[in-house]
Amino acid sequence: MNHPDPQKLSINTATLRQQWDLRQIIEGCVRHEIRGISPWRDQVAALGLKETARLIRQHQLRVTGYCRGGMFPAVTAEQRQTRLNDNFRAVDEALELGAACLVLVVGGLPAGSKDLNGTRQQVRDGLSALLEYSRPLGMPLAIEPLHPMYAADRACVNTLKQANDLCDELGDEGLGIAVDLYHTWWDADFHREIARAGLKRLLAFHICDWLNPTQDMLEDRGMMGDGVIDIRGFRQAVEAQGYTGFHEVEIFSRLNWWTKDPDQVLLTCKARHLEHG
Amino acid sequence: MNHPDPQKLSINTATLRQQWDLRQIIEGCVRHEIRGISPWRDQVAALGLKETARLIRQHQLRVTGYCRGGMFPAVTAEQRQTRLNDNFRAVDEALELGAACLVLVVGGLPAGSKDLNGTRQQVRDGLSALLEYSRPLGMPLAIEPLHPMYAADRACVNTLKQANDLCDELGDEGLGIAVDLYHTWWDADFHREIARAGLKRLLAFHICDWLNPTQDMLEDRGMMGDGVIDIRGFRQAVEAQGYTGFHEVEIFSRLNWWTKDPDQVLLTCKARHLEHG
Repeated sequence: MNHPDPQKLSINTATLRQQWDLRQIIEGCVRHEIRGISPWRDQVAALGLKETARLIRQHQLRVTGYCRGGMFPAVTAEQRQTRLNDNFRAVDEALELGAACLVLVVGGLPAGSKDLNGTRQQVRDGLSALLEYSRPLGMPLAIEPLHPMYAADRACVNTLKQANDLCDELGDEGLGIAVDLYHTWWDADFHREIARAGLKRLLAFHICDWLNPTQDMLEDRGMMGDGVIDIRGFRQAVEAQGYTGFHEVEIFSRLNWWTKDPDQVLLTCKARHLEHG
Repeated sequence: MNHPDPQKLSINTATLRQQWDLRQIIEGCVRHEIRGISPWRDQVAALGLKETARLIRQHQLRVTGYCRGGMFPAVTAEQRQTRLNDNFRAVDEALELGAACLVLVVGGLPAGSKDLNGTRQQVRDGLSALLEYSRPLGMPLAIEPLHPMYAADRACVNTLKQANDLCDELGDEGLGIAVDLYHTWWDADFHREIARAGLKRLLAFHICDWLNPTQDMLEDRGMMGDGVIDIRGFRQAVEAQGYTGFHEVEIFSRLNWWTKDPDQVLLTCKARHLEHG
C-alpha cells in the first residue's frame, strides 16, 4: 500500500497543548474524525483521570500510548524509588485509560554525573522493577529511543539497537519499543533494528518531520512534509513487519504550529498524514 | 597514565576564530607553548598557503589535521565533480602544510532530498574517488562522524560504526577516523567501535564538552570540564589502542569562549586539558 490508512492517524496531545486543554483536544479529534489520541499525564491530571477516561470511552477513541513514564536515573536510591513509585501510578493511569502502552522516556544523566554507562544500568534496573509491576497488570511498556541530542538531559537510550538490547535482556513479555521517526530517522541501522524488533516489539509509531535547519533542539519539530524525513518509506518498513497500529503525530513547535488555529493544525495533520505518511 | 601528556594538546583554530586571524593564533600557540594546531581552509586562504606553511615550519608546530574536506553529496553529477575537485585542492594544501590528515565532514542531504541511503552512497563514491587521488600522495583521509543532529545539513556519517564500515569497504590504506567526543560521546557502541578501529584507523582525537543544557545546535560547545562528557575515560580508551597522537581542542562557542580574551582561552584550554583530558 502506498498511502497510509487515514483511520490510523492519532494525535499526541502535545501537538496542541498551547492552544487547547485536553477536553478541547478530545472534542477536536472527534470533530475531525481522528480516532487515536495519546495524552500526557499533566493534561490528564488537569482534566481528571476519571473524566478523561469517560470522555475517551464516550467517543470511542483509541489511546495509542500514554505519555509518559520513565526518568529512572537519579542521584540517590531514595530518589530512584520515588520515581519508580511515580511510574507505578503511570501504569495505573494507563490502565484506567485503556492505553495501548505506557511510553517510556528513560531519563538522562543524574545531576553532576558523567557516568553514562552507570546511568544506563540505572535505566535497566528501573525498567526491570517497573516490569514486575506492569506485567501482571497487562500494561505494555514502550521504550522510546530519543535522539542522541537528548542523551544528557532526557534519555540515555538513543537508538533502536539499545532498545532492542534491553528487550533481549529483560524479556519481551509486556515490553517493546515506541518508534519515533524524529528520534531515529538518521540511524543507518534503522531497517535492521526494525526487522530485529519485529511485530512483537513494535508498540507505537510516532511521526513528524525534521526541519533543516532546526531552530530549537526541543520545540522546532516539523509537520509531515516540511522536512527531510522519508516518512512514507519508514512507515512502510514498520508495516512490513506486520505493524497495523496507529501513526501518532507528535509535534512540539513553539515557533510555528503551537501558534496556529488548532482546528487548522488538525486539518493539516490529516492532509499531511495522507500525503506524506 | 591518569593525566594526559600536556605536550599532546592541539588547538583547532575554530576555537579562536572570532578573536584572532591565523597568524595571531599561530603566534598565540607558540607563546603558550602549545605544539599542535589544526587550521581551517578559509583561515589558511586568508593568510596565504605558503606563508602559513612557512610560519608552521618556523615554529615547529605539528598540524594535527587540516579542516576540512568532504561535503561530497550534491544534486547533480557536475556539482559532485566540482566538490571532488575542491577536495583534491584540500589534499594538496594539507600536503603543503605537512598535516597529519585531511579531516572529512562528509556532507548531508542534497537540497530537496530525503534519500539518506542514496546520500550515503554518494559519500562512499566521493570518498572512493578522493582516495584515488590522496593515496599516491600519501595524505591520510580522516572520516569524522558528526553528531546525528547534523545528519541533514552537514554529515550523514553519524557513528563510529558507519566510519568503520566505510574503512572496511574502501580499505585502510590512507583512510581512517577522526574521533570527536562532542559527536560520539553518547554512543553506546563507542568502546566497541574504538577497539574495532584500532590504532591504524585512529587518525585524530578531538575534545571539548557537551553542555547541559545546550543553547545552540552549532555554536554552544563547552570547555573541557564544563559539561557531561567523561573526556578522561574516552581519552584513555583511545590511548588503550596505542594512540599517541594529539588531543585537539575544537570549541565553537558564540555565546561564551568566542567573546573572551584569546590568551585567557588558551590558558584555560591548557589547564582544562590537564585537569579533565
